[in-house]
Amino acid sequence: MNIYADNAATTRMSRAAIDAMLPLMEETFGNPSSLYTIGQRAKTALEDARERVAACIGAQPWEILFTSGGSEADNQAIRSAAALGKKAGKCHIISDPIEHHAVLHTLQALEKEGFEITFLPVSPAGLVDPAALEAAIRPDTCLVTVMYANNEIGTIEPIRALGEICRAHGVLFHTDAVQAVGHLPIDVGTLPIDLLSASAHKFHGPKGVGFLYAKKGVRLTNLIEGGAQERGKRAGTENVPGIAGMAAALEEAVAGMPAHAAKLTALRDRLIRGLQAIPHAALNGDPTQRLPGNVNFCFEGIEGESLLLLLDDRGISASSGSACTSGALDPSHVLLAIGRPHDVAHGSLRLTLGENATEEEVDFIIQSVAEVVTYLRGFSPVWRDLCAGKTPFLL
Amino acid sequence: MNIYADNAATTRMSRAAIDAMLPLMEETFGNPSSLYTIGQRAKTALEDARERVAACIGAQPWEILFTSGGSEADNQAIRSAAALGKKAGKCHIISDPIEHHAVLHTLQALEKEGFEITFLPVSPAGLVDPAALEAAIRPDTCLVTVMYANNEIGTIEPIRALGEICRAHGVLFHTDAVQAVGHLPIDVGTLPIDLLSASAHKFHGPKGVGFLYAKKGVRLTNLIEGGAQERGKRAGTENVPGIAGMAAALEEAVAGMPAHAAKLTALRDRLIRGLQAIPHAALNGDPTQRLPGNVNFCFEGIEGESLLLLLDDRGISASSGSACTSGALDPSHVLLAIGRPHDVAHGSLRLTLGENATEEEVDFIIQSVAEVVTYLRGFSPVWRDLCAGKTPFLL
Repeated sequence: MNIYADNAATTRMSRAAIDAMLPLMEETFGNPSSLYTIGQRAKTALEDARERVAACIGAQPWEILFTSGGSEADNQAIRSAAALGKKAGKCHIISDPIEHHAVLHTLQALEKEGFEITFLPVSPAGLVDPAALEAAIRPDTCLVTVMYANNEIGTIEPIRALGEICRAHGVLFHTDAVQAVGHLPIDVGTLPIDLLSASAHKFHGPKGVGFLYAKKGVRLTNLIEGGAQERGKRAGTENVPGIAGMAAALEEAVAGMPAHAAKLTALRDRLIRGLQAIPHAALNGDPTQRLPGNVNFCFEGIEGESLLLLLDDRGISASSGSACTSGALDPSHVLLAIGRPHDVAHGSLRLTLGENATEEEVDFIIQSVAEVVTYLRGFSPVWRDLCAGKTPFLL
Repeated sequence: MNIYADNAATTRMSRAAIDAMLPLMEETFGNPSSLYTIGQRAKTALEDARERVAACIGAQPWEILFTSGGSEADNQAIRSAAALGKKAGKCHIISDPIEHHAVLHTLQALEKEGFEITFLPVSPAGLVDPAALEAAIRPDTCLVTVMYANNEIGTIEPIRALGEICRAHGVLFHTDAVQAVGHLPIDVGTLPIDLLSASAHKFHGPKGVGFLYAKKGVRLTNLIEGGAQERGKRAGTENVPGIAGMAAALEEAVAGMPAHAAKLTALRDRLIRGLQAIPHAALNGDPTQRLPGNVNFCFEGIEGESLLLLLDDRGISASSGSACTSGALDPSHVLLAIGRPHDVAHGSLRLTLGENATEEEVDFIIQSVAEVVTYLRGFSPVWRDLCAGKTPFLL
């Protein structure tokens, strides 16, 4: 069996997305800044994609800026709010420790430039507490940035409550919605969000494309200077095929969302129930305020990497933490932040199901994980010590 | 007849580039940071592309950083050199006034941050004089950035001479080679270049992809912070299909370069000769130190935009200045910098031929331009005044 269960890392492109790209790659290849016919046709495709992407999240077309992906959108959103803050003498930013590195590392860079960052604590389920945000806002706070849903543990943050507090205090609110767009219903027309980042390849669109929603009136700073593309806010010839592919994928994701969410939630909960039967295993993240396809577990006494490789042998593609930090030997900063001890955090497994997943696949995953965990524990000196009572079980 | 003669704005994707992308879009869609098979296959495709791109310009694979395009590469190159300079107390940069806006606007931003920029004058042909560079270098110069070949007038700069002066003074040398890579032979193994920017869609690759060559030892600063992709210097899931498409397109361009350059140079010179027969017309840029496919003319007494639209009616896609600044009513900063008067600069036409161009097409262009120029001059009050001797002819 071949089961791709790492849809939080990236997704298979949908046929609709590929089909939207091909004519723009093969025939209508003009530069949208050009005046002649083939350029203007590309321009029409670009602006059509902008309208459709905007409609998918309840935005206006002029509030959508196309970027090369979620990381660029996060960087530009935060840099823009920081620039506005600095101009107004406000150099305090509020965030939380389980953000994506595109947010965390941008904040670290700003810290070196003189900004002060407050990281709100998160609950053991990974939730940011609105009351804590309310208490942390200061007169010099220029930005609050809290992700829509966590890429590792799937926890969905209370975005409306957080955004309302920001709005009440006149503070800009950015959310990294890379895991949420195309998976959860989002309407920026009614949600108190000023800046929102998204990435196409997380919802069956192409890699190398994303967008930044910036509410009308929020002045963006350029990350990339140059030509006057994207209303002068993002230089570089527009990736028209990629952008059109993103629009097609997003429309498809939004249209299928109710059905997919119901199906994935049922499969997710089946998977969670199955894995919970493994001894000394624990679900990471909130059991219900959770992305439909996301399952994340810690298994005591094993190494996540070995688990992944043995699952890969059985045809299951899964991950330990996020894909963006692989190569690093450190355990997930998200799992540490929700209170998992260092050793336990090392033994984590993220399974993120796609819309085509089946009960049979889920059952195969449960059986495979159970067998592989048992197998690995048979070799593990840590597990031996735990079983011998030399060290206490943590899960 | 349908003649695409704006290959400096963007090019039609080659079949090889599309064919390299499709399997990575359809099947091998994994995230290259993932440990499992489909992720590692994507990683292999990514690193294979890096080796091939590097080989095409005589670089080592680890000297190639993939970006979302030429503008991003320019921004990161200049920002990186500026950061190194600032650290060493060197805040002087040398450039010239005919650079692409991705360079000029980045320099303007740095100027606001305290850098001092010297713009070397260019000759009427658009050439930077190495002796002027030698004279302008100061002890606090940290970077010289001069484009490989101009995107509007096609002039090829004396890159080796400029780079050697930089090297002799221990100053970093960056070149925006967006118009040159895939069109001119470039070997960074023997050329004194520290940083070089390129864009795939200028050599029949996909839009939204480019690369930055940074010589071993030149420390890059991140423009986009986040995950540890691209040796930690460029965050964001890699656009593997786009990168593979770029590698295929570049290999094809490099393999075909000698034949294409000879053919295009002959067609270019035929086109130049034909257009020179039009009264009060003048070639912009150097007649021989010039990109093989580039032709750029000023015609007195007409508006470039009307010329373009009427040529489009005849099936000819051409441009007035660069595509990146369309919408702007200002005349080209390049034409002004080489000394064309404001009125004359407004009546410019850029024709950039592709490798499939034919003599018949060139002759059709010559005839069409001659007819359209005559037609437009018939309506032009400026032309009437010129002919009546009320204002002097400038060309």
